[in-house]
Amino acid sequence: MSKHAFPDSQRAGVYRAIAERRDMRHFCSGTVAPALLARLLEAAHQAPSVGLMQPWRFIRITQREVREAIAEQVEAERLLTAKALGERGDTFMQLKVEGILECAELLVVALMDGREAHVFGRRTLPQMDLASAACAIQNLWLAARAEGLGMGWVSLFDPQALAALLQMPVGAEPIAVICLGPVAEFYSAPMLALEGWAEPRPLDELLYHNSWGASG
Amino acid sequence: MSKHAFPDSQRAGVYRAIAERRDMRHFCSGTVAPALLARLLEAAHQAPSVGLMQPWRFIRITQREVREAIAEQVEAERLLTAKALGERGDTFMQLKVEGILECAELLVVALMDGREAHVFGRRTLPQMDLASAACAIQNLWLAARAEGLGMGWVSLFDPQALAALLQMPVGAEPIAVICLGPVAEFYSAPMLALEGWAEPRPLDELLYHNSWGASG
Repeated sequence: MSKHAFPDSQRAGVYRAIAERRDMRHFCSGTVAPALLARLLEAAHQAPSVGLMQPWRFIRITQREVREAIAEQVEAERLLTAKALGERGDTFMQLKVEGILECAELLVVALMDGREAHVFGRRTLPQMDLASAACAIQNLWLAARAEGLGMGWVSLFDPQALAALLQMPVGAEPIAVICLGPVAEFYSAPMLALEGWAEPRPLDELLYHNSWGASG
Repeated sequence: MSKHAFPDSQRAGVYRAIAERRDMRHFCSGTVAPALLARLLEAAHQAPSVGLMQPWRFIRITQREVREAIAEQVEAERLLTAKALGERGDTFMQLKVEGILECAELLVVALMDGREAHVFGRRTLPQMDLASAACAIQNLWLAARAEGLGMGWVSLFDPQALAALLQMPVGAEPIAVICLGPVAEFYSAPMLALEGWAEPRPLDELLYHNSWGASG
């Protein structure tokens, strides 16, 4: 074992957070203490970023009317998604896909404006800014799980409408509506697996060697 | 505190992995035991994914000639990036931006082909597949740190050339060259901060309330 490895209990904590994190849509009452919310956001902010550009911006929603406007936008997109899903639309409509009005804290994560000035690591892959922000959100998710809080990443929205609602400048782009807060319990498996929406595939089907599709 | 919260030492492990994870470019000799590599990849594979689509594909590179061909592609892009950076190109060329030939294990992560069939959570934000794969890579990064192994995400490559080298089907898309393995030490801060490439900004400058730019 590496001399840089964490002690067993700390290492177990990392694997446990990874294994027990869930994309939550069911929240219960309660609040998130300010110091705890600050700790979670600092965890997000410690994410890696391409060229150290820190492209993430967090918007904490505290006004009820803004939260309700976001809920309306998500509901509109839920209906459009159901339509786009064709024959699976009815099944989709049975799923609970967000907990925006119930969760203790609502956050919107966006990519900053002015990203075109950042070339390092992005000349051929400009979308690496999104990858960095997703790492920040995963940090938040894992830290929240360790604290016993649920979190859900909702991507059912029209980014232009949400940008307008939150007065984002040209070039900024919302990527996530984050529901965060106490939950009665965590799902025992991904909710979409429990609900039969999709069957998760095992790792060995997605792992190749030296070229696409080749087994080891 | 939530009844679902982890015990202190496990919680500390999560925050420590988040805080001490680094985007490593310097590796030392040594190997990654097969069981350990499998554990890390399973951690990656437990990431959330939009609509449970699991868009990630991992290609482990074990053939030296493939590794060398990837190193050549990255070197070509490094030179093109330096040129694109203009007056910062010289400074960029002084940085160590990858450890492809030195690291114990080399992985390529790609988005699968056929993603257009997945509509859930992607009708207006098709790039959420990349976000999911980035969460998987962040899991790998944090688990590696807990195990005392370094990891670096290299995005200096031409995705079409890398896809061709690894015989990816149309629609699949490489997003990361991952260097993984033992390191002599972890950087005390992000390498690009230590090297003076960029000055990290504090969280409070990137956190707004209810609308863009608004303080709480």
